[in-house]
Amino acid sequence: MKASSHAAALRPEIEELQTSKIAEVFYAGANVRNLLPLWFGEGDTPTPDFVKRACLEALAADKTKYVDDRGILPLRESIARYLTTLHGKPIATERVQVCASGMSSVMLTMQAIAGPGDNVVYTAPVWPNIVEAVRIVKAEPRPARLVESEGGWTLDIARLESLCDARTRAIFVSSPGNPTGWTIDEAGMRALLEICRRRRIWLVVDEVYNRLTYDTPRAASPLDLATPDDPVFSINSFSKSWCMTGWRIGWIIGPAWTVDHLRKLSQYNTTGPATFIQWAGITAIEQGEPFIAEQRARLRRARDLVIQGLQRFPRVRVGTPAGAFYAFFKLECLADSTAFAKRLVLETGVGLSPGAAFGGEGEGFMRLCFASSEARLSEALERMAPLLK
Amino acid sequence: MKASSHAAALRPEIEELQTSKIAEVFYAGANVRNLLPLWFGEGDTPTPDFVKRACLEALAADKTKYVDDRGILPLRESIARYLTTLHGKPIATERVQVCASGMSSVMLTMQAIAGPGDNVVYTAPVWPNIVEAVRIVKAEPRPARLVESEGGWTLDIARLESLCDARTRAIFVSSPGNPTGWTIDEAGMRALLEICRRRRIWLVVDEVYNRLTYDTPRAASPLDLATPDDPVFSINSFSKSWCMTGWRIGWIIGPAWTVDHLRKLSQYNTTGPATFIQWAGITAIEQGEPFIAEQRARLRRARDLVIQGLQRFPRVRVGTPAGAFYAFFKLECLADSTAFAKRLVLETGVGLSPGAAFGGEGEGFMRLCFASSEARLSEALERMAPLLK
Repeated sequence: MKASSHAAALRPEIEELQTSKIAEVFYAGANVRNLLPLWFGEGDTPTPDFVKRACLEALAADKTKYVDDRGILPLRESIARYLTTLHGKPIATERVQVCASGMSSVMLTMQAIAGPGDNVVYTAPVWPNIVEAVRIVKAEPRPARLVESEGGWTLDIARLESLCDARTRAIFVSSPGNPTGWTIDEAGMRALLEICRRRRIWLVVDEVYNRLTYDTPRAASPLDLATPDDPVFSINSFSKSWCMTGWRIGWIIGPAWTVDHLRKLSQYNTTGPATFIQWAGITAIEQGEPFIAEQRARLRRARDLVIQGLQRFPRVRVGTPAGAFYAFFKLECLADSTAFAKRLVLETGVGLSPGAAFGGEGEGFMRLCFASSEARLSEALERMAPLLK
Repeated sequence: MKASSHAAALRPEIEELQTSKIAEVFYAGANVRNLLPLWFGEGDTPTPDFVKRACLEALAADKTKYVDDRGILPLRESIARYLTTLHGKPIATERVQVCASGMSSVMLTMQAIAGPGDNVVYTAPVWPNIVEAVRIVKAEPRPARLVESEGGWTLDIARLESLCDARTRAIFVSSPGNPTGWTIDEAGMRALLEICRRRRIWLVVDEVYNRLTYDTPRAASPLDLATPDDPVFSINSFSKSWCMTGWRIGWIIGPAWTVDHLRKLSQYNTTGPATFIQWAGITAIEQGEPFIAEQRARLRRARDLVIQGLQRFPRVRVGTPAGAFYAFFKLECLADSTAFAKRLVLETGVGLSPGAAFGGEGEGFMRLCFASSEARLSEALERMAPLLK
């Protein structure tokens, strides 16, 4: 409905925010029997028991009240220790802001750094929520297209920098990236950091998949390279590494002086994640390493099964992603990925995301989440065969 | 620290957001022994067991995944049924947007309706987070001062309307109000609704204290008076009525067509409250009435004890609030409520909020949260006596 027909209007730019094309396909497949849903960015593994138990204990101990708007101190300390070990470099507790989700971490960062007249250069295709968050703060999202060839993705850093101008406030990178699985290497990360230092703009890195890598123990991170005062925000979440998608808790690492401002934004946007969930987060971090190791091994097998299966179809072109849990494959002669995704779910019961859900740069591609059992993935490949041949 | 000394800057209007003056006093009293903290907006009652149990059950049932960005359907249905009963008027499920907190409900509403160049007229003094949320979306907050006399508060509706101009996008009312306890009556609410209809602007009512009233079964609500398509947003939360401050879950009721846009904002800001907490919310609503009745009775006794106790001090002027759980009292010759609050906590161990925390309109006042045991409240009155005499 248009605003003009109503008693009062919403802001036009809010009405124009995109709705998810994944949701569109999801609704198309709502009545499909024997559905194999591989469209969302979450696996089929429930949250591990030791995290659930920690949550129950915190609830039993009545951890149900308001807390520090930076997040409870023991959780911030735990995150700082975890990152210090992971990066082999001290990350101070004072640099941690706990947020009501990875998404909230992105939104608070955007509010802090960008506004009307500003722009944010980002690697595309990308999770659409990033682009919409930039739009909500009324800045301009500027895609720096990743180049696909022979199924692999590369970033042309010089071209990315050529998109920056005097109103660019940040370079935003998702690595390992959703949907592509593209994972920047240390040299690339260092080059981006140099650009941001020189231009006095922010390097914002969405690291939510940083533990889900298959060729290296973890993804390259700005936290490996940056000084504590460098213009870097690292965004993370419990969702992917610890299978806690529905828990809604994430964090930002920034220069310590920015936390004074991020905490206000957290207070005035959400007032943070639920208190007992913050306590469960401590246990996830402190006892989570064996679980993460197991997930990495399981996902690597799933990745190999899916990629090799897809590569057998002559119309499909796909490389082996270094990180995250998606096969983002190019399908020859595919002009309308949304229409194809609907047809796919209706005819085969396999739910995939259309590439167009990740921006114009994703058209012609399809995304399959391989965080699922090998049996289900094999069945999905089999069912899709008639349409991918 | 100033932005200019850093490698990259934050948006200046974000750096200028106010930090809480309550927090300032809280830090001043950090080392006080035998503290009686009555400064925050939450009671001393833990979340009731039946809600905690429902949360445990949802967690045991692995309700830990992503869900509908409007909130899970059974919760939206439950909220719709609850409001239909409360207001004696059908409220459709399609009008419900579940949010990651009452605060998030406020922020999403502000993002939806206001932006640069717009203004929002609000009743003051008010919870400072409202004003900061308006600033974060870069609109202008315009206070319509409630008039205090003999300890009671009144709203001059004609004066409020005189503050509205062509760029006013909403009238924002907290009723029962924090910190004043001021509670608008049905005639007043109707008058505001008429103004908003005529001007084609939004009436946004923060109803988080709507069940905590002492002279009437509940507060007057726009949902009593408005048609489903009227320009009204009603904001609510589980925090106060169900003692769930740390759970971070709230909702918005708007015209059904707006939920198509609110759900996008919820998706791109937070992606909603934790899934198992949404399930616990259903139980809170469906089994919560005896608990709310008990809380109301307890809070009425606490209110009477505190108000009568305060009225005994000749320097204090305070009326009996009709709703919420605060005594917001005027102290003769008080020029700097923040300094006084610090002195009070250091000399007596009683933690109150300075009136200045609620805007310039609150200077000269102090806020005491009476959601506490009668023993603690009596002791607080006794301890404060030397400084209030």
